[in-house]
Amino acid sequence: MSLVIVGTVAFDRIETPFGKTDRVIGGAATYIALAASNYLQSSKLISVIGDDFPQETLNEMKSRGIDLEGLQIKAGEKSFFWAGRYHYDMNSRDTLETQLNVLADFKPVVPESYKDCEFLMLGNLDPAVQMAVVDQLPHRPRLVVLDTMNFWMDIALDKLKEVLKKVDVLTINDEEARQLSQEHSLVKAARKIMAMGPRYLIIKKGEHGALLFHENSAFFAPALPLEEVIDPTGAGDTFAGGFIGYLASTQNLSFDNMKRAIVVGSAMASFTCEKFGPERLLELTKPEIDARVQQFVELVDFDIELVG
Amino acid sequence: MSLVIVGTVAFDRIETPFGKTDRVIGGAATYIALAASNYLQSSKLISVIGDDFPQETLNEMKSRGIDLEGLQIKAGEKSFFWAGRYHYDMNSRDTLETQLNVLADFKPVVPESYKDCEFLMLGNLDPAVQMAVVDQLPHRPRLVVLDTMNFWMDIALDKLKEVLKKVDVLTINDEEARQLSQEHSLVKAARKIMAMGPRYLIIKKGEHGALLFHENSAFFAPALPLEEVIDPTGAGDTFAGGFIGYLASTQNLSFDNMKRAIVVGSAMASFTCEKFGPERLLELTKPEIDARVQQFVELVDFDIELVG
Repeated sequence: MSLVIVGTVAFDRIETPFGKTDRVIGGAATYIALAASNYLQSSKLISVIGDDFPQETLNEMKSRGIDLEGLQIKAGEKSFFWAGRYHYDMNSRDTLETQLNVLADFKPVVPESYKDCEFLMLGNLDPAVQMAVVDQLPHRPRLVVLDTMNFWMDIALDKLKEVLKKVDVLTINDEEARQLSQEHSLVKAARKIMAMGPRYLIIKKGEHGALLFHENSAFFAPALPLEEVIDPTGAGDTFAGGFIGYLASTQNLSFDNMKRAIVVGSAMASFTCEKFGPERLLELTKPEIDARVQQFVELVDFDIELVG
Repeated sequence: MSLVIVGTVAFDRIETPFGKTDRVIGGAATYIALAASNYLQSSKLISVIGDDFPQETLNEMKSRGIDLEGLQIKAGEKSFFWAGRYHYDMNSRDTLETQLNVLADFKPVVPESYKDCEFLMLGNLDPAVQMAVVDQLPHRPRLVVLDTMNFWMDIALDKLKEVLKKVDVLTINDEEARQLSQEHSLVKAARKIMAMGPRYLIIKKGEHGALLFHENSAFFAPALPLEEVIDPTGAGDTFAGGFIGYLASTQNLSFDNMKRAIVVGSAMASFTCEKFGPERLLELTKPEIDARVQQFVELVDFDIELVG
């Protein structure tokens, strides 16, 4: 049940209408791996950092069974850095600063010990980097999940479309689904996108929940209405990590199990929003996660008798 | 199980990115009554029109058991008219023209035969008109549902707050909930609004579904992802009509039955979006409605075992 996770391990600086941080730990692969570690004893990371990244965080990852053999540490260089400011509605944000640093010429290397990978999570990154990882695997994994964003649709659409042919599940938000498909209706968008390669499409709608499409079936999971959204940074990555972590731990790729995995991902993501950075994710206990999943069960539970 | 419906019966002219209409039948009470008529043999309407309103539509209403004794017809005057244009996303619209006409000095009169009303639906209207209806009832109905919008919060907030004290269920959209409560979090907004009077709050989120709040419980029903949204005009009113029609027909005001009523309302609303005006609502059959409700059941259906 080996899971390989590719993505950024980085620093963020975040401003919201309710507060701001100094430099905090961030990066798609960080959130994915931490979320997945709640369901898996072990996973394997592929990423790159500078020598400015705290050893303490790396130790924390190792203690959660996250194998760092595929994490390149570039001496004398700096880790990727992103700063952003959320708007009042928390659904949109402006990038204030991006320092690519070590990411500028990142060439992922898949260690030998990773090559029997059964589950592959390609976090949001240059599609060329995502493809380089896929190309190094001698066998196709049982499940390949790819997350991406509008930025890559704008500047690397051809490469993105090439990678899409290699993946089973694509996760993007509703605006990105519309951009990628050139369709406003999400039903039509899903059909077009699934024709590009992924057999499953997950459309993330933030506070409005997530949709799963597969063939002619659709499933919807709401987001939990929260008392307080402190910082949504990493919520989408946390969702992906919970999703693939659950699938890898259960080893069941049926549509019914995908639905469960989406609820688990949504539950994990709701925690991430409760504090700045991955802080909330680091303090979670299994009973807390189960109680949160139970809230999702109750939120959509109803029975109705159709009398025809 | 008598249901009294108060609201506009009117004409609309609608433009969407996908087409435009000439003058078509519209009005909150029209949509509410037509939707409810799928669940109820009879209902009673309170509204006002001019003598320009087609007799054919009135006959259609009567044939669906909609009692028009409370419908004032003003000779020599014109019916309320609204023209609007939807933006590309179909979630927002601009008003192009409003002619109040008969609505300008509407004084609702509750006929004697309406006064034993058990279910009262106060459709979107001047809160003073809504209050005038409530004040004419000798007994409090079993359930009072009120729909309103930001316009009345802007110009008649005090009167609106007065009516809110008399209602059981309020239906508004997410932005309106935020405006009314001055809270961004919908959980906090719901708590504040329920303290204003309504024991139940339904937050309508259009294509993102609907939330029901009551005490410390929440329920979420998605909107059905549609192939094609032709015209969302009247979808919120249709939702309200399906909701109260189902409750009145089942005579069950438990939270579980409210949840079913929300699913029924959502299903009815999804039909309204499929054609311009109330056209789709007029051609519905019971098996079609049941099949649509079943799609909602399947859309959110999942089972997950929590192993702790």
